[in-house]
Amino acid sequence: MKSFFETVRLERVHELARQLATLEAENVPLEMALGRTLAGDLRADQDLPGFDRSSMDGYAVQSRDSFGVSESSPGYLRLVGDVVMGRAPGFVIDRGECARIFTGGMLPAGADAVIQVEHTRQTDERTVEVVKAVAPGTSVMGACDDARAGQVLLTAGHRLRPQDVGLLASLGVHDPVLVRRPKVGIISTGDEVVPVDRALAPGQVRDVNAFTLAAQVREAGAEPVVLGLVGDDAPALVQATAISLDRCDLTLLSGGSSVGLRDMTRDAFLSFEGSKLLVHGVSVSPGKPFIWVQNGRHPLCGLPGQVASCMVAFHLFAEPMLERMLGREPRSFARFARVSARLGRNVSAPPGREVYLRVALVETGQGLSAEPLLGKSGLLRTFTQGHGIVRIPLGVEGLLQGADVTVMVFP
Amino acid sequence: MKSFFETVRLERVHELARQLATLEAENVPLEMALGRTLAGDLRADQDLPGFDRSSMDGYAVQSRDSFGVSESSPGYLRLVGDVVMGRAPGFVIDRGECARIFTGGMLPAGADAVIQVEHTRQTDERTVEVVKAVAPGTSVMGACDDARAGQVLLTAGHRLRPQDVGLLASLGVHDPVLVRRPKVGIISTGDEVVPVDRALAPGQVRDVNAFTLAAQVREAGAEPVVLGLVGDDAPALVQATAISLDRCDLTLLSGGSSVGLRDMTRDAFLSFEGSKLLVHGVSVSPGKPFIWVQNGRHPLCGLPGQVASCMVAFHLFAEPMLERMLGREPRSFARFARVSARLGRNVSAPPGREVYLRVALVETGQGLSAEPLLGKSGLLRTFTQGHGIVRIPLGVEGLLQGADVTVMVFP
Repeated sequence: MKSFFETVRLERVHELARQLATLEAENVPLEMALGRTLAGDLRADQDLPGFDRSSMDGYAVQSRDSFGVSESSPGYLRLVGDVVMGRAPGFVIDRGECARIFTGGMLPAGADAVIQVEHTRQTDERTVEVVKAVAPGTSVMGACDDARAGQVLLTAGHRLRPQDVGLLASLGVHDPVLVRRPKVGIISTGDEVVPVDRALAPGQVRDVNAFTLAAQVREAGAEPVVLGLVGDDAPALVQATAISLDRCDLTLLSGGSSVGLRDMTRDAFLSFEGSKLLVHGVSVSPGKPFIWVQNGRHPLCGLPGQVASCMVAFHLFAEPMLERMLGREPRSFARFARVSARLGRNVSAPPGREVYLRVALVETGQGLSAEPLLGKSGLLRTFTQGHGIVRIPLGVEGLLQGADVTVMVFP
Repeated sequence: MKSFFETVRLERVHELARQLATLEAENVPLEMALGRTLAGDLRADQDLPGFDRSSMDGYAVQSRDSFGVSESSPGYLRLVGDVVMGRAPGFVIDRGECARIFTGGMLPAGADAVIQVEHTRQTDERTVEVVKAVAPGTSVMGACDDARAGQVLLTAGHRLRPQDVGLLASLGVHDPVLVRRPKVGIISTGDEVVPVDRALAPGQVRDVNAFTLAAQVREAGAEPVVLGLVGDDAPALVQATAISLDRCDLTLLSGGSSVGLRDMTRDAFLSFEGSKLLVHGVSVSPGKPFIWVQNGRHPLCGLPGQVASCMVAFHLFAEPMLERMLGREPRSFARFARVSARLGRNVSAPPGREVYLRVALVETGQGLSAEPLLGKSGLLRTFTQGHGIVRIPLGVEGLLQGADVTVMVFP
């Protein structure tokens, strides 16, 4: 068996990805921060909520006044005021006293707990009957319960979820400092590929990769710049690459990396001053013909043309680069949840390759079964009908039915 | 113990949500389709790929010509042509013949398999040595392998992932018919709440809910319309609600639904002609004071003001409504993956409530442990430091350490 590429292992690609620089930081309006990445650690500049607050509607009390009370042996407290929402109470709770308070209201000095309104009854204008004993701190959110001044709440590289956007809002950070989103130039090539709105002649297929890659780029937190479909000829490849180098931070060229066209793609990438070939071939399946030429800070990537292989290659190679450019740890399938399952049937793996097998998850009653989706790796239905991916490590010739596997689930 | 609301069970809310109408359909450019929802079934109007294609670089052959060949006993085939990418080959493969073909090339008539180039050697201009036997169909993607004409590939209500966008592209659907995204009016209220860019006086907190809800709405596939912060007074609530009824498909008002302000919110919602109270109080914690007033096709929702409770309530009540308006099955925590874990410590649940407990997931070596995040339910850190939510069903007084639980993992 001949070796066509000097293949490297996937770990080597991630090692190289780790050397990519994080993009610069920028201030972003908080409304636009969802899914973006923190450029620095987020530190609380104040205690949060900053004062003791009630977490219930009820009465603020000194808890020891409630000790021993019950339905059959109620206690009676003197009502000395109402806590007005959004203001510091102008009174203190002494022994035997209470104040009406709503959820979120500021606890008056002296009080250390709240008795829920359900466990009270106002007997006259100045008297409240209480029937439940509470411990100090009951139904109270402490002044530092959400955060303590100086505490690191989120770290650099964290991708903001709704709750994190809320945390920024609670701290008054209305224009957080975030990593700029990488712009990703997407180029499709292949003489058999036609634009998506074109009728197909025999032998032709539509330009699917431009759409799947743009969507994957967007989900990875970057910005796709679709540069279109170019023919399998050197001047066209060079021209499209030049535009992407000029406008974007990373280039994804799909199609030109199989044995027939790989040299042309590689040569187009290497025709630019400062270009350096880092990777040509990785011991994975699918994704083996991957090309990485680095030009300054800009990775130029050649991905397989087959649509499903191209999707896997994006997750294996391009997403870790984008993760790094966003200041995160480079990792394949970074956004995929992991679940345990048993393999539904025997599968074999070609020697010398790490295999990324598409599977469907089926609930069997004895737990999840991962059913390999047979069919050629180029088939999109391995992604549309599948639920996730199982990795068969290098050196393993196959896995038996019933083997415990970890499935990386499509988000 | 007094009952303050006529509470209903969560299932009742979902039953009512099921009666909401799906919004109208619209054509959307495929570039904008990621995360959107199909309005109708997607049917293949043609076979895909539509012709037999090679999934490897190599030689197209009649497989029977390879039977019995091996490294030690090679076969020899006459090279009769090259398959040009994107064109139907103008020749036929007869017995003893082969043609050079690249990945994605159209199989010539007569050929039924491809021998990978790694298992071949061109010995002269017209002769190829082959050293591996292949079965019929080897390294060939059949004409209908991705789809058969008439087959339903995706069903109405499906939310489009990158692979689904690719499937649409492969079918030439460049402006799919999708359900319009619901516009969601977001109103914050509470006299203690101030805008996010304001310095805090004692007793005040910032308007976090506007940001968390807007982000949650966006992740649910709908469009947030932030209508701002209004005071706890009836005319202001009515005015803000009127704007939302006019501009949006659903309203989320946070803050005015606790016992102190619930009547004001409810009355504001009910002040509009055609309004009907559907729900006032649900037997869940957090989220109990939820209000649902229906006005025509527009749900008016009152959510708790406490930030974490408000986030849970969104998932419990509002997201199922949005799911339904998008043509999907209404379900709480619809986008959350489920993982199995063991509970890290005992927890108790208040009687008569279904509890949604925030937990952190910890890998123990014996599988995942779900550690309850103690602290008041209003605390945002139960979301920022947690990984997911465990449901304690109605009628269960608590769960013991070590109990098997299902964790709904934050996306």
